[in-house]
Amino acid sequence: MKIAVLLAGSGVFDGSEIYETTLTLLALDRADVRYQCMAPNIAQAHVINHITGEQMPGEKRNVLVEAARLARGEIIDLKVADASDYDALIVPGGFGVAKNLCDFAFKGADMQINAEVRDFARAVHRAGKPVGLICIAPTMAAQLFGEGVACTIGSNEDVAAAIESMGGKHVPCPVDECVVDEERKVVTTPAYMEAGRIREAAAGIEKLVAKVVAMAG
Amino acid sequence: MKIAVLLAGSGVFDGSEIYETTLTLLALDRADVRYQCMAPNIAQAHVINHITGEQMPGEKRNVLVEAARLARGEIIDLKVADASDYDALIVPGGFGVAKNLCDFAFKGADMQINAEVRDFARAVHRAGKPVGLICIAPTMAAQLFGEGVACTIGSNEDVAAAIESMGGKHVPCPVDECVVDEERKVVTTPAYMEAGRIREAAAGIEKLVAKVVAMAG
Repeated sequence: MKIAVLLAGSGVFDGSEIYETTLTLLALDRADVRYQCMAPNIAQAHVINHITGEQMPGEKRNVLVEAARLARGEIIDLKVADASDYDALIVPGGFGVAKNLCDFAFKGADMQINAEVRDFARAVHRAGKPVGLICIAPTMAAQLFGEGVACTIGSNEDVAAAIESMGGKHVPCPVDECVVDEERKVVTTPAYMEAGRIREAAAGIEKLVAKVVAMAG
Repeated sequence: MKIAVLLAGSGVFDGSEIYETTLTLLALDRADVRYQCMAPNIAQAHVINHITGEQMPGEKRNVLVEAARLARGEIIDLKVADASDYDALIVPGGFGVAKNLCDFAFKGADMQINAEVRDFARAVHRAGKPVGLICIAPTMAAQLFGEGVACTIGSNEDVAAAIESMGGKHVPCPVDECVVDEERKVVTTPAYMEAGRIREAAAGIEKLVAKVVAMAG
């Protein structure tokens, strides 16, 4: 078994959430499942100073190059990833998902998903393989997998409403649980949409990974 | 109890090792121990493209600003950290430790330690509190805590020889264990000096954190 982990940079405010990604890889490795990190080779929407929360003027970074930090260099360009090589897909959260993989952070329910991201995720899904979406990543679920897909971002009412308006079925969920759409094989957990501390995020992510691995097996 | 976690940027090749840092924070949180991340407010020695391993020409980044990614923004400048506020210190590894906190990566046994790093670590140590050093960070042990300090970087003979030449006592150690200098209260584990997969690094780091917390208690 080999699972694709799709990244969006490195850092909660403009990339993939670092703890969510690490906890996902740890849970996969402890389940003896191989994984391959990948990211689109595109410019980041912007670069955020993680102390101030402000944009760093003039700073430009590449999603794939920064995501490589989260993979200790062992990463591939999403463009060359072949969905048939993988048994499942997991997308950790972080604002980078909503800024670089899609533009939910800027356009809400009018968002568009990056074409490579969309095509890869749909190819995994169409092959009957499970997809795990963490934190803010479930905002992509309805556009990717069709109307009525059950998913969660925890309890944030604005984001839940946006998901509903795109055709998704939002299910409130505590941080240490995950929501499973058994028919569509989509698993989601709130992680840092709800977590106040790292062990809370770990609890939900461990359940999500276990469910994705079980569905892929 | 509150433990200081000293960072050196974000990314294995020019900052703090991301998995080692995350696994340290997870182990601390699961032990119900509070932590505070901190880093020096200085320029990185350089910026490495984590795909190619090459330096990115013209790119400049700040250690504290990049380390903030690893702390979800909750970080302080090492300059304002007061050793008396903490019950222990842990330094995760990554090349950034050997490039930004000291210059071991460039000068080997002739290395110097950043003055703020040195003064803070020594203040923790002089107060009889434990210090945990992960991966490459034990190269600082002899200069920080005096001749004869027992420590490990695993089995790398060149780095072990450099530690010995600086006055340290290197003890070979497998990835899932840690070495404890009970008298000096210094705990070290090889992590990614030896680890081939994340769960191996986790095993040693969990033991290091447990020992540091026990000594601090």
